[in-house]
Amino acid sequence: MKQSLTPVRGTNDYLPKEMAVREYARSIILSTYKKYGFMQISAPILEDINNLMGSDGGDNEKLIFKVLKRGEKLDLSAPNLTEQDIVDIGLRYDLTVPMVRLFCANQNSLPQPFKSIQIDYSFRADRPQRGRSRQFIQCDIDILGDSTINAEIDILNTTAKTFLALGFEGFAIKVNDRRVLSDLIAYAGFPQESEKDVCICLDKIDKIGLDGVAGELQERGYNKKIVEKLMGALESILKNGINALAQYGVRDEVVQSVNKIISSVNALSGGKYRAEFNISIVRGQGYYTGAVYELYVDGFSGACGGGGRYDNMVEKMTGKSVPAVGFGLGFEPTCMLISERGLLKVKEELVACVYRPEDDITEVLKFVEKLNKTYNVSAVCAKKNLGFQLESLKANGFTKFVKFGTNTIEDL
Amino acid sequence: MKQSLTPVRGTNDYLPKEMAVREYARSIILSTYKKYGFMQISAPILEDINNLMGSDGGDNEKLIFKVLKRGEKLDLSAPNLTEQDIVDIGLRYDLTVPMVRLFCANQNSLPQPFKSIQIDYSFRADRPQRGRSRQFIQCDIDILGDSTINAEIDILNTTAKTFLALGFEGFAIKVNDRRVLSDLIAYAGFPQESEKDVCICLDKIDKIGLDGVAGELQERGYNKKIVEKLMGALESILKNGINALAQYGVRDEVVQSVNKIISSVNALSGGKYRAEFNISIVRGQGYYTGAVYELYVDGFSGACGGGGRYDNMVEKMTGKSVPAVGFGLGFEPTCMLISERGLLKVKEELVACVYRPEDDITEVLKFVEKLNKTYNVSAVCAKKNLGFQLESLKANGFTKFVKFGTNTIEDL
Repeated sequence: MKQSLTPVRGTNDYLPKEMAVREYARSIILSTYKKYGFMQISAPILEDINNLMGSDGGDNEKLIFKVLKRGEKLDLSAPNLTEQDIVDIGLRYDLTVPMVRLFCANQNSLPQPFKSIQIDYSFRADRPQRGRSRQFIQCDIDILGDSTINAEIDILNTTAKTFLALGFEGFAIKVNDRRVLSDLIAYAGFPQESEKDVCICLDKIDKIGLDGVAGELQERGYNKKIVEKLMGALESILKNGINALAQYGVRDEVVQSVNKIISSVNALSGGKYRAEFNISIVRGQGYYTGAVYELYVDGFSGACGGGGRYDNMVEKMTGKSVPAVGFGLGFEPTCMLISERGLLKVKEELVACVYRPEDDITEVLKFVEKLNKTYNVSAVCAKKNLGFQLESLKANGFTKFVKFGTNTIEDL
Repeated sequence: MKQSLTPVRGTNDYLPKEMAVREYARSIILSTYKKYGFMQISAPILEDINNLMGSDGGDNEKLIFKVLKRGEKLDLSAPNLTEQDIVDIGLRYDLTVPMVRLFCANQNSLPQPFKSIQIDYSFRADRPQRGRSRQFIQCDIDILGDSTINAEIDILNTTAKTFLALGFEGFAIKVNDRRVLSDLIAYAGFPQESEKDVCICLDKIDKIGLDGVAGELQERGYNKKIVEKLMGALESILKNGINALAQYGVRDEVVQSVNKIISSVNALSGGKYRAEFNISIVRGQGYYTGAVYELYVDGFSGACGGGGRYDNMVEKMTGKSVPAVGFGLGFEPTCMLISERGLLKVKEELVACVYRPEDDITEVLKFVEKLNKTYNVSAVCAKKNLGFQLESLKANGFTKFVKFGTNTIEDL
């Protein structure tokens, strides 16, 4: 069989220089999340296919990598085969659905409310693009069991402090609320059952503009007058901001809730980042019920993460209502920006301990043992052209070298 | 669709107490590997199915989770469907095959020899058992480009120092060599092409004993006299150790190579662990070509990892020969033993900052900000029965609490 040297389409190999950035980012993110009292858990990448397909994940459900049944359970000779017949497991498309399943199965062993951390892989068979991968790490924090906006504020404050700790200067948390969108859609006169469908179009305001969204809504068969009424409201809100919401039928308590989240996050920012209302934040998943938000680092057009309130997911699984709020930090775009902007300041020293082929490896490794109380030290056998070899080591991340048996550690 | 609250069969959910052990182990393993000059890389979990199926992985190839093709590439209505028609990707069964692919694709950007670290997930649809999981982490180190046994000694020394750093007292590295087995099999009179088949039986000496292995070989149709000759040799070697090898046709240089590995690793041990010859170490994968070894912690019957030399894998992929040696540390059994033996000594303090529902969350989080220069602090809203709540927090890993606005941090 033909072997391929490239990674599977849409995935990446990471070399030592890239892994240095990734490990640095992982450790800063994890330690900052822990500082704010969140606790780490981990659910499997493999998840029951029915849990994934019934999870209200919007378009993400179309992007699931599905795993073939094994052994006797798989019968490819059966007539009229469907995917349901031959698939029992999927790779999770996000960390939220498996985390909620884990929470439901272990409620009695976890604190109430529960503040969780997950740093783990998810998979989507998405169209490959810059800063994205079909296998990607997300760094999620969630609070389960707090129905007040204290949860949103805690989540957003912890997230913002994490981006500060990573060295980012200048970023915005853009906040909206599904109930704002819901009230606007009702105000314009759309039938209630079309809310999710309309939200999917509104999610594209950033990409195709208001006119594009209006066109798409009409193509989907919505009445022109209703669409125009909604566009009028959105145009005014885009211009005048959150204060315009009340005149288009958005409930007072929803406006106050959004305002309080934004003002609290800003009060905690020390002027180093900002929270702001943005009507075009919608989020793709169907499971959101309240606040939704995304984080944008200045100078980069894509989001570095997002999340919101999803109060119905636990109830759907167990029948018992538990409110929930989360934020998923996008590890891939964040690491890309750390690299591009040179935010990785601390570099680990790597010393080559060069020995000759005739040296006794036991003695060489004893020598290494002494040095690596201070440095990371690699035993490297000398080649004939030592000068060239040292150049090559330097190009590959080594910073110093020492000849076995000498006491002089020299810069490369 | 029916939702399931349990993790997929053979996989595990990890709660905060378990994750504390796993993160501790991960960080000790990674930092010790780095101390000895290995460099971290990461290849995707998803791998081309042809790379996996043609990888000489022995029985592991039967345990691959296979991923269904997507979109138009998938045609379930075609006649006489086979797995090949509907599958294009698999989940890797180990870290070695994808690492070698990554190395082959990036040889010019990597040091020669290259000493790699991988800490990552693999998957096998194995029968679930204690200390094993269908989704498991392996912590691999490999040296590519060193044909001398300096590589084996470096790998085994680094591995042993890692187990010391994890707090294990007393463990054995059991060493054998595929060439020892090869010479014995030839000595007994087996046809050369049956070597891999015979090795698969020999891999079971520990489980079913010499008599069991003899029976199985005869069932497979091997001549009784040949089988008895091999058993005679093995019995003598089990009794008399490595010194018995020469009289059963094992080449001198192979015996010397095994002896040198063992004596060097022991010379570096400071008496804290031991390396020893063991004829029953075989390893399942077909790709091994020289030394093979496994690590056993005293008091636990399963291996906590293993590896060996696999000199042909790079050549098979690229046509260019690059020798290779590796060790895969089994993260799952190792973490199980760390938990069971109480080896996690450093526990992180987690402080609950208890506030009342009427307190301003902004002020609460400012207060948390001050405290978490020293502690990990979680803002927790007080419930009516504070005493019961504090008990519950203690049971869930919190160690201290402080009431918002006071300066007294109390033990829980």
